[in-house]
Formats: sequence, C-alpha cells, structure tokens
Amino acid sequence: MGKNLTKRSEDYSKWYNELVIKADLAENSAVRGCMVIKPYGYAIWEKMQAELDRMFKETGHENAYFPLFVPKSLFEAEEKNAEGFAKECAVVTHYRLKTDPEDSSKLIVDPNAKLEEELIVRPTSEAIIWNTYRGWIQSYRDLPLLINQWANVVRWEMRTRLFLRTAEFLWQEGHTAHATKKEALAEAEQMNDIYAEFAENFLAVPVIKGIKTESERFAGADETYCIEALMQDGKALQAGTSHFLGQNFAKAFDVKFTTNEGKQEYVWATSWGVSTRLMGALIMTHSDDQGLVLPPNLAPFQVVIVPIYKGQEQLEAISQVANEIVSDLKLHGVTVKYDNRDTHKPGWKFNEYELKGVPLRIGIGPKDLEKRTVELARRDTLTKEFIAKDNVVEKIVDLLKEIQDNLYKKAKDYRDTHITEVNDFKTFKEMLDTKGGFISAHWDGTIATEDKIKELTKATIRCIPMSSTQEAGTCVFSGAKSKRRVLFAKAY
Amino acid sequence: MGKNLTKRSEDYSKWYNELVIKADLAENSAVRGCMVIKPYGYAIWEKMQAELDRMFKETGHENAYFPLFVPKSLFEAEEKNAEGFAKECAVVTHYRLKTDPEDSSKLIVDPNAKLEEELIVRPTSEAIIWNTYRGWIQSYRDLPLLINQWANVVRWEMRTRLFLRTAEFLWQEGHTAHATKKEALAEAEQMNDIYAEFAENFLAVPVIKGIKTESERFAGADETYCIEALMQDGKALQAGTSHFLGQNFAKAFDVKFTTNEGKQEYVWATSWGVSTRLMGALIMTHSDDQGLVLPPNLAPFQVVIVPIYKGQEQLEAISQVANEIVSDLKLHGVTVKYDNRDTHKPGWKFNEYELKGVPLRIGIGPKDLEKRTVELARRDTLTKEFIAKDNVVEKIVDLLKEIQDNLYKKAKDYRDTHITEVNDFKTFKEMLDTKGGFISAHWDGTIATEDKIKELTKATIRCIPMSSTQEAGTCVFSGAKSKRRVLFAKAY
Repeated sequence: MGKNLTKRSEDYSKWYNELVIKADLAENSAVRGCMVIKPYGYAIWEKMQAELDRMFKETGHENAYFPLFVPKSLFEAEEKNAEGFAKECAVVTHYRLKTDPEDSSKLIVDPNAKLEEELIVRPTSEAIIWNTYRGWIQSYRDLPLLINQWANVVRWEMRTRLFLRTAEFLWQEGHTAHATKKEALAEAEQMNDIYAEFAENFLAVPVIKGIKTESERFAGADETYCIEALMQDGKALQAGTSHFLGQNFAKAFDVKFTTNEGKQEYVWATSWGVSTRLMGALIMTHSDDQGLVLPPNLAPFQVVIVPIYKGQEQLEAISQVANEIVSDLKLHGVTVKYDNRDTHKPGWKFNEYELKGVPLRIGIGPKDLEKRTVELARRDTLTKEFIAKDNVVEKIVDLLKEIQDNLYKKAKDYRDTHITEVNDFKTFKEMLDTKGGFISAHWDGTIATEDKIKELTKATIRCIPMSSTQEAGTCVFSGAKSKRRVLFAKAY
Repeated sequence: MGKNLTKRSEDYSKWYNELVIKADLAENSAVRGCMVIKPYGYAIWEKMQAELDRMFKETGHENAYFPLFVPKSLFEAEEKNAEGFAKECAVVTHYRLKTDPEDSSKLIVDPNAKLEEELIVRPTSEAIIWNTYRGWIQSYRDLPLLINQWANVVRWEMRTRLFLRTAEFLWQEGHTAHATKKEALAEAEQMNDIYAEFAENFLAVPVIKGIKTESERFAGADETYCIEALMQDGKALQAGTSHFLGQNFAKAFDVKFTTNEGKQEYVWATSWGVSTRLMGALIMTHSDDQGLVLPPNLAPFQVVIVPIYKGQEQLEAISQVANEIVSDLKLHGVTVKYDNRDTHKPGWKFNEYELKGVPLRIGIGPKDLEKRTVELARRDTLTKEFIAKDNVVEKIVDLLKEIQDNLYKKAKDYRDTHITEVNDFKTFKEMLDTKGGFISAHWDGTIATEDKIKELTKATIRCIPMSSTQEAGTCVFSGAKSKRRVLFAKAY
C-alpha cells in the first residue's frame, strides 16, 4: 500500500519527478520535451486560469487571440528580442507531406511544399502582436490597449522537466499599449502586484516582488518586474514576470499615435506572463513525502468521502449519510467527491487521495453510523479526528479556510527564515551550500561581478526587492561601494 | 454615418468579409491564412466555450492537454487518418535560428539544428492522444475514458476565409475510449446531440442531425455524425461532427484492455469537435445589412446605454439615471455597458452598436429625464419604443428572452422553407440554382453517383438525417432503387 515515493531529504529532484507522475498531474510525451497535462493536473491549471482571468478582466483587460506562427521577417524585427529567442525556436519550413515513393506506408516531407518564408512557432508573441497593433492604434483615443491572450508557446529547451521547463507550455501573455511612459510603467508594476496577490492568496505561495538586473531582463525589455518564490530545497523559482518594454517594439514595428495635441509619438508597451510553471511552484511549496498537498482554493475537489463497509447493506446505509453530506457541502460551495467504487479497497483510496493532495478526507464506517460520527482527516497536518455527523459541514467550511491560511503561513515561515543577510563572500558561499535560500547581499551593480558570482557559486541575482531600502555597504564580492542589498539564490 | 456595408443581396460573400472586419470580430494576420481574433469576437467565442465546457463536464468529461506536435512516425500510424491530413500539414524541421553570416541583422535557419524526425503541427490529435492512451488503459476499470481538450490546430488550407476556413483555428476535441462498440456509438451520438442542443438553444442556430456518407466521413472514422446548418444564402454549413472511430486507432496504437472476464480486447473510440467556425455560422444565420445580430446568450454585453446630451450638467443628470439602470440590470444578471465617452457622438455610437449586434440599446436624452422615459431599440427587429424608466428592467429581461426565441424561430422558418423534396434531376438542378437550401432526394447509395452529382452541381450530400424514415423511391440521378432520402446542398 506504500506510495514508493522517494523522500525529499533523499533526492528532492527525484521526489518531484515521481510526485508529478504518481499524483496524475502530468507525464512526458512522445515529443521530446513536451508534456501531457493529465485531467487532475489540468483541473488545477483551470482553477488558476479562472482566477487570473477574473483578475485581469477586473482591471480592464480583454482577451484576444493571435497566430501561433510568426514569419521570420517579423520575428527578427526587434533585434534584442530576436537574439534572445533565436536559439530555441521551432521552425516550420514545409506545409505538406506526401507518400514515400520507397515505402507507401510512410510519409515524407514534400520538397515541393517549401514555404517561401519560414514560420517560427511563437516562443512569445510581442512580434506578431505589435505588427498587428500598428493597424489598431492611430490616436490617443485608441489607448490604452489592454489585451491578454491564453495560449501555448514553444521554446526548444535542451533540458526539460515536467511543468518547470518544457518545450511547449501553456501560459497567458498580456500585451498593453499606452500613451505615456509613466502609464506603461504603472501597468507593468500593477500586473506584477496582481501576480503577487494571486500567488499569495490563491496558491498560498509567498513571493518577493522585485526588479531584475539588466542581464536577467526579458529580451527586448527596458525593465522586468518579477515575483520570486522559494522552494523547499532552498532554490528560488521565478513565478511570474511583467515587463516594461519602453518604445522598443513600437519603434521596431512603427506603431505611432496622434496625441491630443496632434503630435505623432511612439507608443509605450508592457507585456506580462505566467505559465504552467506555476504548477511546479505549487507542488514544490506545499507537498510532502506522502505526496501532493493542495491549498483548498486549487483542489479539483476539496473533500473526498470514502465508505468503509462489508456488503451491499452496509454500503447503502453509509451512502445515505454520505449523500446527505455531499448535498450539504455543495450547498455551501464546497466541492466534494463520494468515492463509492467497489473496484478499490478503502486503504487504496486513502493512499490515493493522500497522494493527490485532497485537503480533507471523510471516512464513514459501520461504527460511525451507530455513533452518528465521521472520521475527518486533514491532508496538510496528516491529523485525524472523529466529529459528530451533524457538525461536519460547519467544521469543513472552517477547516478549508484554516488549511488555506496554514499552508501560506508555513511556507512564509520557511521562506522568511531562509533569507540570510551576508556581508562577505566566504559566508555567502557557505550559506548557499549549507542553508540555501535567498542571500541578501550588497552588489556593486556591474554585470562582471554578477557573472563572476554565478560562475563561482551558480547563484544568480533573483531580484532587487521592491521593498529594499537604501543602505550604504560594500559589494560582497568586489568590495566596491553599494547602495542597497539584492537577493541572490540558486534557482530553477 | 453609413456603415458602407455591402448588401447581402448584392454580394453575400463580400458582405460577410466586411462584416467580420467592421464589427471588430477578426482580421487577417501577417501569416498566410491565419487570423487574429479581436477582443469583441473572442468574447463571443469565450461564451461559446463556457457553455460547451459546462455541457461536457455535466456529461462526465474532463479536460486535459496534449502536445501541439505529432512526430511523423506516430502521425502516419493510422493510415486513413494520415492520408486524409497529409496534404495540409505544417511541418517543423528545425529547432534553432542563427545570425545570417551575410547580414547580421537577419536570422536564418541553422542547418545544424535539423530534427532527426520531423514534427507535424497537429491538424487533429487522435495520433498523439491514442499513443498516450496506450499507457493509461490496461483494464476495464480504466474505461470509459472521457477526455476533452481545448486547443489550436493547423490545417494548411489553400483558400481561407475568416472563421470559416483558416490555417490555424481554435477548437475543442473530445477523445473517448470505451469497452464496447455499443457504448462508443452511444457516446458519439450523445455528443452530436449535445452539439445540436448547444447550437439551437444557445446560438439560436437550427440544425439537422445526421450521418455522413462514407466519402464525407472523417479520415479514420467508421461513422461520422454531424449537425448541418443553413446559411441565409442557401448554402449549408457543417457546424459540428462526432465520430465513431471503431477500433481503428486502438489497433494502430495497440491499445488493449483486460475485460472483466480476463480477455484482452481492443478499445473502442470516439472523437468529436466544434471550432471557431461556429462564429461563421452564428454570423451568417442572424446578421443583416446593418451588421451583426447577436442572440442575447452570446452578446459580450446585452444592453448598451447611450446618453444624448449637451454639456456636462445634462450628462451628469443622465448618468445618474443610467447608473441606476446599470445597477438594476446587473442585479438581474443582465450584462450592460454605459458608453459615456465624450470622444464620440451619439449617432456614431448608435451606428457602432448596431454594427456590433448589441441586442438592446437604451438612449437617454434630456426629454426622457423630464418624462421619466427611455428610448429602447431592438437590434433584431430594428424597432424602437419609449418606455417608462421604472419598467426598464422588467421589460429588458423579458425582451432578451423574446429576442433569443425570435432569432431561433426566424432562422428555423427560413431553414424549414428551404428543404425541398425533389424527385428528378432536372428539378434538382433548378432548385439548387434558384432557391438553394437543402434538397431532399433519393440516392442510390453509391460513391459514383455522389461524385457525379457533385461534379455536375457542386452539391454534396450533407447528411442522412437521423429523422429520416424508410421510404421506397428511385435515385434522383441514376434511377436505381433507394430506401430513404438524403439531404444535398452546396456547402461552406
């Protein structure tokens, strides 16, 4: 009955890979680096989508859809963006197959169906979108343009891991156009705030809001805002980014508008995105050696009821109680599954739902019928108690809230105790190797130092926190003067 | 102030193309045959998605996500399916670009990054999904497997039209696996029924449920169920299909299961889909020479309020009334937009919302304030009336229902009067050329006759209606014996 799940302390990476498969979240496909998102995993992603979509619409954004393909000539128009993504582009070169003349059961690419211009499968959509915006924006009246797209994108990564880094992934990408720099900057920051709010309140994943250094910026951006989370193994994970693109794309695609005063000016831009990578953040923030742990907000079903019975008569009596509880819970907006399958034993089911992270499990046996009780088990604390059947609904409604809060608090405690202020490079390296987490240290602001630290320790600057205050100091590596601390960490 | 929209009677096809652009639904992109779905068009698609998704889940289906790419060797495994789609496949051959050595501002495909095996951009996902199902299905306990996917697909069509036929389109594709032939057939028929219910009750588009002839079947299916709609120009449009795939894919991908009795058997399959093509059906069923006409179920906003004012003081007084109405309507679940922009005149707005098919428009001017009235205009009938402000909400709730019903009734009347029973080929041709619509005629059941009729008249057999009864007769073309009538039409 064991889950045969590797312990986190033994091999965190192996634990993660096994958990994703065993909890039925996703699996590798026949296509190199591309995953299949299984129904249970997809149901969690759908909950993320619904909440984000609601938040985007509430702040005035509309959804639209732009082509999967980007003609090469458009792709290369914004030079830095093109350079940043060129090495990981899937390229469509032909539009037809034909029967292999040497084996009629096989197909080959038809050499007569070569495209005049190659098409890039979008790794991100700035190019195709800004080429479209040129036709949509003439006057200040057309601004701001606040658009989001839910889509699949492809980045040909060499080393892939389910959810964390896949050749194809699902995401949303917001692309907005503004009349002023100030407004675009405010939008980029607002969307980063929305991501932070979503991560903390919905995923129960505490994040640090910050700004990327120049070398960690999105290719084509003037500024990249980000939210950084901390996984249980002490490595950071970038959970979302929001970019201030300046006028870079407006200039590359010649998107100008007439101001209120009749002048022609280039438009200011932002773009922002989160992806199925959030699934990885979710898993690695809360789960344990028994399997997945889901915050109630994201659980495909928040409660599962398992009958413990011998024979049809007992099952019927238990089912009557179970069905009452199901109805009551549904009335209170709680999602619940009654698993009365006779193909699996209760023990198997307990194990399965623990592995799948269902927040609360109710067990009902013949003795419970006598005593009018049920057994209630919490997934986050792995504690059990018997409660009166009549109090079940009230108890569950309270507990779901408590579990959501508890998961956040636990993750935040871990994160907060894993931000270490360090003032010399020896301690920097020691802390990184022993304790892990974020290292808060002074940095001289140069790319050379950043690169050198990365080379020596594999740690990168995750961000300059929005909350950081001026503080005179000296760079942890070079000793040069510094005005504020930044956060270093090894990262996913 | 005119809309400069071509009249339907002048050039239906031109009217359609202009309408899609002018109503801000979609536009052509820089990628050959691929469209941009604009926010207003996408909002309608989102409403379709939400309703279909609800219906799928209610009938036990779950969503999942499978890769965009299909390795060529998997693609060719089910021979008929491969043959059917080979001629319209976008093929990825490389995974990297590099700087053009002859012009450093350009990129070229890196010849060193050629894929060992080409990847097909999915034109449909049976191959990649059935290759995955092999790992998911071992026992009868794993069946039925009821899965749906929302995705983009690519079919390299030579002649494209916005929504109706595009190289990339959005759709849902259901893929189910069953233990018995009977169950799979029932599923295929059930999903076709769901499509019909959705089309009629939600889109207000009457459809005929039927079965395709062998030559019109989905490549790889043993039976294709379909729903066929009739457009205002007398041409039919296939609005959805549901396929019984037999054991074809199970055999091609070796997907077997252990029965309750311990035997090994191949799994039975279905697949079913509707796409953004439904947008075309929606537009061509209801719209008129003034622009789009939307059923209330699908309108991004069902009511628009336009203030008619001079000066800030009047606007404020009108806004007070308007905002009251907005609040009341929202409480009653009606979606409403108050357009108080001062950048556009009321006449411009009236025109705009007529073009965009908003079901109801409320105009409020200074005289209305005096009389405590508003002007209410119906988009479907283009009629206007003044009504007491206090009755607005009740009236609107009733009218929205009435408009939804009226649109369906109108479309059904047109469709019903455009099904013509014909018993000789001369009349067949005449009816097709003069009246259009569906021709109900006897057919001898041979592909040869079907092909010949298509060649001579461009009409195809749209379906053998589910409702058709046995009736002895002779084929309208060959004179051979026939047992039932089928429906012919020219089609999109």
